[in-house]
Amino acid sequence: MLRAMAKVYAVIMAGGAGTRFWPASRLLRPKQLLALAGGSGDPLLAATVRRLVPLITPERVVIVTGEHIADATAAAVPDVPRAQILCEPAPRNTAPCIAWATTTIAERDPDALIAVLPSDHFITNEIEFRRVLERALATAQIGYITTVGIVPTRPETGYGYIELGASLADAGHEIGARGVVRFVEKPNRERAEEFLKGKRHLWNAGMFFFRARDMRAAVAEHLPELAQGIARIAEASGSVHAASMLKTVFPTLPSVSIDHGVMEKAKDLAVVPGDFGWSDVGSWQSAWELGDKDHHGNALEQDTIAIDAKDNLVRSLGKTKKVIALLGVNDLVVVDTDDAILVMPRDRAQDVRMVIENLKATGKTKLL
Amino acid sequence: MLRAMAKVYAVIMAGGAGTRFWPASRLLRPKQLLALAGGSGDPLLAATVRRLVPLITPERVVIVTGEHIADATAAAVPDVPRAQILCEPAPRNTAPCIAWATTTIAERDPDALIAVLPSDHFITNEIEFRRVLERALATAQIGYITTVGIVPTRPETGYGYIELGASLADAGHEIGARGVVRFVEKPNRERAEEFLKGKRHLWNAGMFFFRARDMRAAVAEHLPELAQGIARIAEASGSVHAASMLKTVFPTLPSVSIDHGVMEKAKDLAVVPGDFGWSDVGSWQSAWELGDKDHHGNALEQDTIAIDAKDNLVRSLGKTKKVIALLGVNDLVVVDTDDAILVMPRDRAQDVRMVIENLKATGKTKLL
Repeated sequence: MLRAMAKVYAVIMAGGAGTRFWPASRLLRPKQLLALAGGSGDPLLAATVRRLVPLITPERVVIVTGEHIADATAAAVPDVPRAQILCEPAPRNTAPCIAWATTTIAERDPDALIAVLPSDHFITNEIEFRRVLERALATAQIGYITTVGIVPTRPETGYGYIELGASLADAGHEIGARGVVRFVEKPNRERAEEFLKGKRHLWNAGMFFFRARDMRAAVAEHLPELAQGIARIAEASGSVHAASMLKTVFPTLPSVSIDHGVMEKAKDLAVVPGDFGWSDVGSWQSAWELGDKDHHGNALEQDTIAIDAKDNLVRSLGKTKKVIALLGVNDLVVVDTDDAILVMPRDRAQDVRMVIENLKATGKTKLL
Repeated sequence: MLRAMAKVYAVIMAGGAGTRFWPASRLLRPKQLLALAGGSGDPLLAATVRRLVPLITPERVVIVTGEHIADATAAAVPDVPRAQILCEPAPRNTAPCIAWATTTIAERDPDALIAVLPSDHFITNEIEFRRVLERALATAQIGYITTVGIVPTRPETGYGYIELGASLADAGHEIGARGVVRFVEKPNRERAEEFLKGKRHLWNAGMFFFRARDMRAAVAEHLPELAQGIARIAEASGSVHAASMLKTVFPTLPSVSIDHGVMEKAKDLAVVPGDFGWSDVGSWQSAWELGDKDHHGNALEQDTIAIDAKDNLVRSLGKTKKVIALLGVNDLVVVDTDDAILVMPRDRAQDVRMVIENLKATGKTKLL
């Protein structure tokens, strides 16, 4: 059914800051480097690389991250060649990130087929995930800029949505992909309810699949300024000026998301519906949802003592693990790290930023 | 008003285990060695010694404790001569403790006047405390075995009570002391309510005042077996056999409280009412009550971050202090130590023993 494929590369976007997982996440230890989800105990980034195998091996994985976390990132994915860890001199949102990585790969392999993936999501059903990935890559191979849309399970207002178009066919055969009517920004509650009922909208999970040449053409058409900047960086690539050109040009690139800058404007878009137990692990609440739980709904560390305690999340992430005893508490998040402890109800998980603000206001910058 | 006084000595009973303050209290770090109450930051034992000055200086303080915590005890009260820290080979309740300490002091000073005090209580009004102490010592000086009774502030079922008798006089002058009708064991709630209303019952706070000779006579009369054992220990005292005699005999002494063994039977008892902000610091709940609080009722450590948080107790007792962030939680106890963290509601403070039982059952004996 599938044509012979071009070589497939992955670009993993790993520049996130992730303040919502304080005190585990820090400026120098962002969310994707934490083992937040149940199961393997891998950092989310390492799990992202691992679950691509055997479709895409680490030799063809490019990771885009920030200078300040380059070493920590490399340490988390030792199988990925260090030269393929690209460091942005400054964060400029996803369009510059994807355009740069795409051009870098295209220099090596102009016929490359590329999967762009977030580094900090969690997927339960990895076999189904790879099946969907194959379908998306096959769709990209015939010239569509393709995304995977997650089948919604709740009226979520925190994500963008993708409105499904007609089924796409290749040489008369349906290919399991749909056209895209439009990319929709985060809806209000009412619209989100409609989307859920209507079954014509999928969550935009930030996964993109394309031939390198198609993305380069789309960027050139819709973000010409970005395309020019990337061209300057690419010209200097391999020369003695490469590093200084990157440092000079990259921070001046337009800070725009790939969704807004390209996907909302491009033609020949496709979406492959996916239903593989996806979570963006957006907060300690999600970490609790994904965690292995005891009979009382507690997601605990091995040594935790829980007496008359229900539905709590305990995470011990310091170098020395302490025994954490919960007595008569419910629905709490308790996180211990080497220099800070957080105690809050699970339903305040979105408010961790208030702690970050407090740390900034009181000059406790070492804890950021 | 007072006669010329004999030399006054203090016996501080510091053998307690104090499992109710886990994870701060441990077998090797019992409650009296912890700085649990507000103010000075002294361990309770050190505060007990300090508040006796200038009435009784450390040179005349005897501390009775256990072998296993002898060094830690000595370190907490460096002003008390090491020879005056008596180590019981085994805990045998308060009667053997007091009889032994009394005999030891009597060998040095047969006319000694002795104040026996717990090591792990907290007193807010130290000036009033010393005034009451002077009155109790003056009463003991004329031959009464005297106690201080705390004026009740609530229908407490956790303490013994002392029923007040007639006012006592010396040479026609009232001395601020009362006779004792009886010592009453811990009452049920109903009786405790009656006691509070009747104003004729005081809390037994475990403080005793007597001439050495009066206590020795009372022990000889009411606990002859104990008196004989102590006599054997005393005879060997100073000889090469002292240590082995103590080790042999002490563990065989009757394990009985001074209240039950002596006070409930002795004649010539007196009680001096006291109202000086007393607390036995019986649980983390008491520690919260006694702690310095912010405007929201939180008793915190210096570095604690409290956001939308009310009426919590935070104690950080490890060698390295972590920043503890409370977000949206009320009425909690959060205690951090070097190897364990406890999180519970304040109103479960009495149930800390459940954690101790769990530690024993799961073999986590290092944390006991």
